[in-house]
Amino acid sequence: MAQLVIGLDVGGTKVTGALATAEGEVKRLIRERTDPEEGAEGGFRKLCRIVEDLKETAASLGSQVGVVGVGFGGPVHFETGTVYLSHHVPGWEDFPLRERLGSETELAVVVDNDANAGTLGEWRFGAGRGVEDLLYINIGTGIGGGLISGGRLVRGWRNLAGEIGHMTVRPEGPLCTCGRTGCLEALSSGSAIGKTGSERLGRPVSSEEVFALALQGDPIARSVLEEATDALAFAIGAAANLFNPKRVILGGGVSEAPEELLVRPVRERLPLYVLPQSLEGLEVVRAQLGYDAGVMGAVALGLEEGKLL
Amino acid sequence: MAQLVIGLDVGGTKVTGALATAEGEVKRLIRERTDPEEGAEGGFRKLCRIVEDLKETAASLGSQVGVVGVGFGGPVHFETGTVYLSHHVPGWEDFPLRERLGSETELAVVVDNDANAGTLGEWRFGAGRGVEDLLYINIGTGIGGGLISGGRLVRGWRNLAGEIGHMTVRPEGPLCTCGRTGCLEALSSGSAIGKTGSERLGRPVSSEEVFALALQGDPIARSVLEEATDALAFAIGAAANLFNPKRVILGGGVSEAPEELLVRPVRERLPLYVLPQSLEGLEVVRAQLGYDAGVMGAVALGLEEGKLL
Repeated sequence: MAQLVIGLDVGGTKVTGALATAEGEVKRLIRERTDPEEGAEGGFRKLCRIVEDLKETAASLGSQVGVVGVGFGGPVHFETGTVYLSHHVPGWEDFPLRERLGSETELAVVVDNDANAGTLGEWRFGAGRGVEDLLYINIGTGIGGGLISGGRLVRGWRNLAGEIGHMTVRPEGPLCTCGRTGCLEALSSGSAIGKTGSERLGRPVSSEEVFALALQGDPIARSVLEEATDALAFAIGAAANLFNPKRVILGGGVSEAPEELLVRPVRERLPLYVLPQSLEGLEVVRAQLGYDAGVMGAVALGLEEGKLL
Repeated sequence: MAQLVIGLDVGGTKVTGALATAEGEVKRLIRERTDPEEGAEGGFRKLCRIVEDLKETAASLGSQVGVVGVGFGGPVHFETGTVYLSHHVPGWEDFPLRERLGSETELAVVVDNDANAGTLGEWRFGAGRGVEDLLYINIGTGIGGGLISGGRLVRGWRNLAGEIGHMTVRPEGPLCTCGRTGCLEALSSGSAIGKTGSERLGRPVSSEEVFALALQGDPIARSVLEEATDALAFAIGAAANLFNPKRVILGGGVSEAPEELLVRPVRERLPLYVLPQSLEGLEVVRAQLGYDAGVMGAVALGLEEGKLL
């Protein structure tokens, strides 16, 4: 009987579940909006129902579900699968998600933060296939990331690795959501680009508008993006000197900007920040999984770590 | 019959060989000066003689040598054990050190750069014992380093990982030996501290003198060290956000400076550059192996990687 995998992506405003094969072929996908007011218990009930639903689909296909991978929007204690907290919804503090989802659904469950899941997803199914050493950066409202080194996800001693968004780039730079100053996230995230653009243009603009204006040749928008891409190159350079990755993958909404405004300027600035020998052969590419990156990451997490259970 | 290990540390002005147990007990140590004019072939002959000598010692102890680990002062292609180049001696370019030393001595040989070897040494025998995630920084004339993540050395795709010395800290900072500007090495190495101290004091001083003057309260020397330790904290912070180590180990000559002038100020500046959750429980300590760090690293390399052969 063929084994399938369930991936669950638990974000702030929606949860997505996918029933997939080990090759990443999605048999069925369910997406539901969540309401922060439901709290952790309400969100958890929704997850259970989605899993039961996908389990039935698997049975109807003559297959069974081997493991459930959960990519969660907040830090997670990986070994126990206990959530530290949700970035979006109150009530998830210390929630034993792996244990409760496992006993409720009678399936093996692996839980990790969504940045690690996203990294595993691009590695297994997306722009990182076949590479043993890579850096994944998700540039959206905030900036998250993950590292694969020697064919393994880098976790760190408390599963907090990959926080490239909070690498200091300019100590005297703008205030970050984390309370410190000059973090990459405060310089190059979608919200940072929108904020700096708004200040300099003298009217409220989104990051999408800054990209659009820059495409039309607006000098202020261009200078905003030059600073944002320079900060990205700085942070990627630091990581490249430390880890010597073969490939850097840029994902998230901002990475969908035109190549000439994001990926190309990052590549052009990298020689300032990386040793020549570590720069040699280093590829900077866009992520491939797009809108379904989160749930495909959760599928990849289940496949990667399910064997440990 | 007990198995022993030979470690060889190949530096610019000396080679050191040690015959040791798996617990790091050194049965015999040989240190010889080298002359760059001997070139690679002369240096290689010296290595062969030291290995033969230590092999005889092992036999006389009723033991045999299981593996030779070589820590080399320059980048090495790890899988083949071929030297890319020596930082100190011409003629080593593309030298197949593992193959030639293996066929000459009829022993299994592992070759790596001395920064990786030093990292393995502190991990196995020194300040990193029992820790699965650590960052090692060697601060001497230059700055090198290495990373252990999840109980494995981080190599990167071309075995060039760990180059924290060339992380950009201040893009507008002083010129580095690598040709770029503002690298950690150009701000916090022994030679950088000596150079900045000399400029500001208006007379030639070594880094040791800068530390001595700072201990006596000299305000110029203190400001030189404040900048150097701030740059170190910046680079450590970047690495800590990226890979969430449990411990940071400072080795090399400069790390022997008084705690209040180096380790303590680094610790005090870290909160500026690391996320609070990644800072929690992060230890910054001095290396323990001191003068023999190089050769004990080579022993650790042999023990760690010898099993792969």
